[in-house]
Amino acid sequence: MRPRGKPGPATWKTLESRKVYSTRIFDLHHHRRYHHQRGHHDFYVLEAPDWVNIIPLTEDEHVVMVRQFRHGTEDFTLEIPGGMVDPEDLSPMAAARREMREESGYDSDDIIELGKVHPNPAIQGNYCHTFLARDARPGAKIQLDTTEETEVVLVPLASIKELIAGGEITHALVIAAFSFFHFYNPPA
Amino acid sequence: MRPRGKPGPATWKTLESRKVYSTRIFDLHHHRRYHHQRGHHDFYVLEAPDWVNIIPLTEDEHVVMVRQFRHGTEDFTLEIPGGMVDPEDLSPMAAARREMREESGYDSDDIIELGKVHPNPAIQGNYCHTFLARDARPGAKIQLDTTEETEVVLVPLASIKELIAGGEITHALVIAAFSFFHFYNPPA
Repeated sequence: MRPRGKPGPATWKTLESRKVYSTRIFDLHHHRRYHHQRGHHDFYVLEAPDWVNIIPLTEDEHVVMVRQFRHGTEDFTLEIPGGMVDPEDLSPMAAARREMREESGYDSDDIIELGKVHPNPAIQGNYCHTFLARDARPGAKIQLDTTEETEVVLVPLASIKELIAGGEITHALVIAAFSFFHFYNPPA
Repeated sequence: MRPRGKPGPATWKTLESRKVYSTRIFDLHHHRRYHHQRGHHDFYVLEAPDWVNIIPLTEDEHVVMVRQFRHGTEDFTLEIPGGMVDPEDLSPMAAARREMREESGYDSDDIIELGKVHPNPAIQGNYCHTFLARDARPGAKIQLDTTEETEVVLVPLASIKELIAGGEITHALVIAAFSFFHFYNPPA
């Protein structure tokens, strides 16, 4: 295979870009692009900071998960803590630790990176960075923003596979995180 | 754990909804919602049809992948075939087979479902349905829409794990698909 960033087919030239809509989570940008074989086309991209998520694992092998209402699906999901990298965060890892503390009340100083993914390269340029927190312990103060409503749920690590296979855990970025842990990049 | 759809924390009431922007891939909707403890807030949701992706596997254990330019990341990605369920598609499985034919030129009549995920429950309500096509063979006519530029790449199945671990395959929905195949719901 060709190295990344050394494309075979020709790329597109951006002729015009503008922000067409702004929200708290992302901005919607319009790009007018030209391809010498395909002509002029319009593309829409969500601009957002990088995201993070983190698997907080307790000493007795439970995952600290968060049951929360999600406004896209209009239903409750079972997720690991996660969110946006804020400008104040020193690194994606620091952002993941902050989100774990704020959303679950658990903390750890033994955090490692498991991987990173593009949530949706067709319409977003950002990464989601995935971490594992070992020896997670309660003690931090849960701090939700004004729109979040969550419930902390301790889930045995041994049951995660079944929860994914059975459709109880459906969030693609959460499944990607566990797939690094279980199979693609398991911690030593 | 509580059964799905039987929430603990109270849910939100939608006071007002409207489409604020429309694109070829999704519409952006604004919802004004009220929560008895959290007050009034604005939420933005991308409305889109369900998506599909499919792992076309040849008899000699190669995955038929597509290298394509993605306008979110402004770079080439290595993906499996996938796309939107069109109104004409009889089912998500039919949509996945059509996308496989159109994007890779391979076809198969031995297709099974591996699972389905929510691409991003925070801002989207749709599912991405994931399939495996066994005994995929060339012969269909590649039909790209006018904005797609792709290159078909045959990747040994045995090297997929390394390509995900090494960051060559980064698309979260592609990783979720392979994670069902490899670990969460492997075919019998």
